[in-house]
Amino acid sequence: MSGPAGTSAEGRTGVGDERRARAVWSALVEPGDAVAGALVQACGAAPALAWVAGAVEAGRPDWSQLETAGSGLDGALRGRLGAAVRRWSARWPSLDAERDVAAGRRCGARLVIPGDPAWPTGLDDLGALAPFALWVRGAPPAAPRAVALVGARASTTYGERVTVDLAVELARRGWAVVSGGAYGIDAAAHRGALMGEGRTLVVLAGGVDRAYPVGNAPLLEEVVRAGGSLVSEVPPGATPSRSRFLQRNRLIAAISGATVVVEAAWRSGAVSTAHHAGRLLRPVGAVPGPVTSAASAGCHRLLRDGVAVCVTDAAEVIELVGHVGPDLAPAPDGDAARATDGLDPLARAVHDGLSRRTARDTSQVAARAGTTLAQARAMLGLLELEGLARRAASGWVVGDAHE
Amino acid sequence: MSGPAGTSAEGRTGVGDERRARAVWSALVEPGDAVAGALVQACGAAPALAWVAGAVEAGRPDWSQLETAGSGLDGALRGRLGAAVRRWSARWPSLDAERDVAAGRRCGARLVIPGDPAWPTGLDDLGALAPFALWVRGAPPAAPRAVALVGARASTTYGERVTVDLAVELARRGWAVVSGGAYGIDAAAHRGALMGEGRTLVVLAGGVDRAYPVGNAPLLEEVVRAGGSLVSEVPPGATPSRSRFLQRNRLIAAISGATVVVEAAWRSGAVSTAHHAGRLLRPVGAVPGPVTSAASAGCHRLLRDGVAVCVTDAAEVIELVGHVGPDLAPAPDGDAARATDGLDPLARAVHDGLSRRTARDTSQVAARAGTTLAQARAMLGLLELEGLARRAASGWVVGDAHE
Repeated sequence: MSGPAGTSAEGRTGVGDERRARAVWSALVEPGDAVAGALVQACGAAPALAWVAGAVEAGRPDWSQLETAGSGLDGALRGRLGAAVRRWSARWPSLDAERDVAAGRRCGARLVIPGDPAWPTGLDDLGALAPFALWVRGAPPAAPRAVALVGARASTTYGERVTVDLAVELARRGWAVVSGGAYGIDAAAHRGALMGEGRTLVVLAGGVDRAYPVGNAPLLEEVVRAGGSLVSEVPPGATPSRSRFLQRNRLIAAISGATVVVEAAWRSGAVSTAHHAGRLLRPVGAVPGPVTSAASAGCHRLLRDGVAVCVTDAAEVIELVGHVGPDLAPAPDGDAARATDGLDPLARAVHDGLSRRTARDTSQVAARAGTTLAQARAMLGLLELEGLARRAASGWVVGDAHE
Repeated sequence: MSGPAGTSAEGRTGVGDERRARAVWSALVEPGDAVAGALVQACGAAPALAWVAGAVEAGRPDWSQLETAGSGLDGALRGRLGAAVRRWSARWPSLDAERDVAAGRRCGARLVIPGDPAWPTGLDDLGALAPFALWVRGAPPAAPRAVALVGARASTTYGERVTVDLAVELARRGWAVVSGGAYGIDAAAHRGALMGEGRTLVVLAGGVDRAYPVGNAPLLEEVVRAGGSLVSEVPPGATPSRSRFLQRNRLIAAISGATVVVEAAWRSGAVSTAHHAGRLLRPVGAVPGPVTSAASAGCHRLLRDGVAVCVTDAAEVIELVGHVGPDLAPAPDGDAARATDGLDPLARAVHDGLSRRTARDTSQVAARAGTTLAQARAMLGLLELEGLARRAASGWVVGDAHE
């Protein structure tokens, strides 16, 4: 089944070049194609593409050539590759990297690939699901301090107001805002970031030359003018589709240090973005709202399920991102000594045997305090009464009176 | 310092009788006096009271007599007892159990003590902080299925509406509602329970013969008429005080299988009730609200701190209580088999090596599936792509496609 389509595509795409190969991959496979991702990870973008070109021409994969390319792919992935090559063959004849790059040039877009300074390195955490490249309009999308604000298209005035407030404040504090290009919460996030004179990143499911919905075109142009970025993993001209919207959500989650859902219905794309962030071990926040509002049901679900932490303002959002690093450790509590001033020595010894965070059972406390078990038990009861000790799920900790 | 006050008090109070002794204790010490609680636990209410009577008469504790009473009290608590006896002596002359019981009879109140069928056994979990007795108007307060709905006096229309909805539905499903006697969320909880034709318990900080605030007197009378209960740990005629309100909160938490905070300011009594429930290892729920509403700030704080679970309707409240028992285990998922139908044997073996709840690392999964590490890794990647496996914080679990 070798034919002119395969041959000419190979000629056009310049498979020997990493950057061009990634441009081709971005057009060849659907976003989130893990088989393609694993192949490119194993062989490199250009050798992998050359191998696919050969397989398309020959009408069947040449496994011996794949091994020559130095791949460590095992049998299981090979089985998947056979089906994947058949899938990719269908799109092969229409590939034209030169055309895509030219279209990008016309709309002011350029290609950013892994290793470029502009590459948002958070995307690498997606592993085999990482995009092959980003098509970018505007500023370089790499942002060390970025938070995703996502939510429903069908937002309420409450949700939009909270989103704008959060985005303005995050922007003022130097955080880039990341969101999609939809009406509702997405648009409010970008508007707020612009109002706060901060950076904002719009991650699109279609090409960066087409606003979807079209009504947001002026907002997207304003983002580019104001130093923000429009990014997409599909080439200019590509249309958004349901699956591309869903896959786009993983990029929002991976680019951002944390993802905050402001308003979302019970099942929604924003909830899927939150789950992507959770899988990437990124912090997830959800803004609560009235339980009588269907637009907040997805947020409440994320809170109930323990996927998200409740956040109510920008400071709490930043604290959320800070949880992953040592930068926001709580300040030492200077008042702690005062609360225990009136204690007799035995009670103080038992109190000293408690930790703020690590729950200890009575015998552990007694051992640390150098008291008998009965003494520790009695003192813990008294300390509890004074709010200086507290029963946690798995033992005793320092009490609330210190807080 | 033996004198007529001590002697006559002993004569009046009839310390040989457990029920009468507990009536005296309820008037003698402030709610939440852990020293008194420990003494009564160690010696029994009547012997402990007899010993206190002797100590008051003699002007100093007779430790030898305390040991005769069979107490296992250790030195530390003894030190506290000396100060406590001096504290109790001040109130001793004004004690009059007969007067209290008569006052109770006049307002239709009776004394309920531990061991009575009417005693809410959840109170026993308070240990040394358990009340000595309850003064009760209306129905017996024991309720195996009871939920506390608590919140701000300064509630909003939103909070009251949600409270009434929750209480109506809980009442209809056979759950007793427990709350205080204040305006706002407390009153809305009782009104809702009455509307749902269910049981409601009002836990008061002062005597059961006095509504506080007085404006709620008609509501409290209606509660008694409709088969609900007014309860207090202080005798009829006792006035509420700030510390009695705070101590009252521990009774609400201990009587109830779960505590739900509907609306509460950042610092509030309702938040303290939630913490009491948490210390008792009872489930705590919080109803979210607009982040722009100060009346919901305490609820959001409880959610952020992980003290409370987000609840938005009565079914979620009941699920919360159900968490502590086996009665609400999730139904087996009949669709689980379907999602894996298309998998090849290797992928299915790896899938079978996953658990829904216990995260396993790749080597654990490989061991369970009987595959090589590389096979398990590849299959997990594919299963993840299809939503059949999911990366959790500490390893792999069954994916969302089953949900």
